[in-house]
Amino acid sequence: MKIDLHTHILPKEWPDLRQRYGYGDWVQLDHSCEGRCANMMKGDKFFRKVEPNCWSLEDRISEMDATNVDVQVLSTVPVMFSYSAKPEDTLDLCEILNNDLAESVKKYPDRFVGLGTLPMQAPELAVKELIRCKKELGFNGVQIGSHVNDWNLDAQELRPIFAAAEEHGVSIFVHPWDMEMGGRMSKYWLPWLVGMPSETSAAICCMTMGGVFEQFPKLKVCFAHGGGAFPFTVGRVEHGYNVRPDLCATECKKSPRQFLGKFYTDALVHDPKALQLLVDVIGQDRVICGSDYPFPLGEHHPGKLIQESDFPEEIKTKLLVDNACEFLGLDKSKFERKS
Amino acid sequence: MKIDLHTHILPKEWPDLRQRYGYGDWVQLDHSCEGRCANMMKGDKFFRKVEPNCWSLEDRISEMDATNVDVQVLSTVPVMFSYSAKPEDTLDLCEILNNDLAESVKKYPDRFVGLGTLPMQAPELAVKELIRCKKELGFNGVQIGSHVNDWNLDAQELRPIFAAAEEHGVSIFVHPWDMEMGGRMSKYWLPWLVGMPSETSAAICCMTMGGVFEQFPKLKVCFAHGGGAFPFTVGRVEHGYNVRPDLCATECKKSPRQFLGKFYTDALVHDPKALQLLVDVIGQDRVICGSDYPFPLGEHHPGKLIQESDFPEEIKTKLLVDNACEFLGLDKSKFERKS
Repeated sequence: MKIDLHTHILPKEWPDLRQRYGYGDWVQLDHSCEGRCANMMKGDKFFRKVEPNCWSLEDRISEMDATNVDVQVLSTVPVMFSYSAKPEDTLDLCEILNNDLAESVKKYPDRFVGLGTLPMQAPELAVKELIRCKKELGFNGVQIGSHVNDWNLDAQELRPIFAAAEEHGVSIFVHPWDMEMGGRMSKYWLPWLVGMPSETSAAICCMTMGGVFEQFPKLKVCFAHGGGAFPFTVGRVEHGYNVRPDLCATECKKSPRQFLGKFYTDALVHDPKALQLLVDVIGQDRVICGSDYPFPLGEHHPGKLIQESDFPEEIKTKLLVDNACEFLGLDKSKFERKS
Repeated sequence: MKIDLHTHILPKEWPDLRQRYGYGDWVQLDHSCEGRCANMMKGDKFFRKVEPNCWSLEDRISEMDATNVDVQVLSTVPVMFSYSAKPEDTLDLCEILNNDLAESVKKYPDRFVGLGTLPMQAPELAVKELIRCKKELGFNGVQIGSHVNDWNLDAQELRPIFAAAEEHGVSIFVHPWDMEMGGRMSKYWLPWLVGMPSETSAAICCMTMGGVFEQFPKLKVCFAHGGGAFPFTVGRVEHGYNVRPDLCATECKKSPRQFLGKFYTDALVHDPKALQLLVDVIGQDRVICGSDYPFPLGEHHPGKLIQESDFPEEIKTKLLVDNACEFLGLDKSKFERKS
């Protein structure tokens, strides 16, 4: 059995958002190109070509079957977060995306699980939508960005969201996004290859040193893309915390290393040695198979790195199934295939 | 025996650079504070307090003896690079720093080795100073920043410097610097804990994918701070190179992984598991003890992580001595202590 925690999905179509809100370069899917593909456009600008597996549940299930993925956990594409828009508009878009996602899960409840998206820039609205995601749509988790405009994830403004997530048992999947794109980052896909690991590392540093994990001990958080640079640099971060408490220990008296075992990461590291280090550092109960499906930087055969690793079967099962169930409070038996 | 590749030094004093050049917030040492410490000032702004071991050779030797470091490889503090100043002024400052460094090495030739600094923003001047460093000052290496203003290290403008370095047998030590300091990076020492690993990773990505190592196969390059995030993310980078050749393979047809074993990193990772991964990825002949002495983020007992590792003695000797000698073309016997 195999659960893929980290997959992205879009509705096949949604209203023209510039028309709906009256401003902004919103993301739209342009289906007018040849074949079954579509162009993701940001305003008039081409962002990325996507295949039907980005929206078609049946295309996804067919590919899941081909790679023996039993369940995909679905979340929106981070470019949809739209945290810089007017709060009520982001909320409206979140509702569109979350409702569509709930429909998808409802259609194939033994193949898909949903993570909602929230208007994080407006914590009060985000809390309401989080509760709606849980109570009305049945989502046990949400996906949030590694930062929210000028706020890192330690911002006091965000604490009510974390409080609500803890209270209502909503787990949080942190996805890197909004990397520096221009200037020196404009070549060699650097925003994705270097920027994302940096974003994720900064998010972990801020949630640990900012005292978020201390304040919300039952909050479950998983960082995408293998925890970014953090698992390899935890010694550096720890050392920095110890030698410069004036800079690092301002808000939390426990060092970042003391929170290892508390938070989760996905296993998207593309290298067997890196996976070994990841599991050694983050913990065999805290690393979760996640492929970034259907995007090219992801693991094209989800879970293959884990399956081909030297880990004993019981650890493989944790990474491929059990840890995802634990993170999202899922009942494994619900997804067992009746073959 | 133990050689520390990564240590920084300043002259005790140097001319007032604002007066000398007529502009700019240059770094100066203010010795007027209490005790033997000094304040590093950037213009009128306090940058960092430093101890006498930042300039005093005798203080350094006494601390080296206490931690069994036989040789320190000395380089300037990256904030001195001054790549954004007028080229002739940066050259003048480089001459001041390099000449002072040469004096230090001359005074204790069996304890210190020098790495020069260059006006990288003016490649013609940099080449001249590189040759002077080698021929007149006897330096077998230089330290450069992880980027030069708007240029990454793949910039065509920098190639004549790499060509000269290869031709004259001058090794290059790449140090992260000029990280984003403000905004979301302003807390928890993030420029150092997250920004430096990202800078270093970007530098390795640019030198590999930019074809620098391909163009200059004999050029020796060592990346400081344990190669930043790169050793852990090499799988990600490799995968990115393979799936998006349109973005990544534009200048070099060999993937980044194919250059493993070609370049060096120091061993400054502060964690035994990270050190193991580092040596596995970068190679037992390519990882070099380096402490960032005398700064707090460094390894306070240089080489201790290596010495206390599970590596067999022969690998420890490589990491502590032989690889540094190989990188800088040093004759080990010159430094053997006559105790």
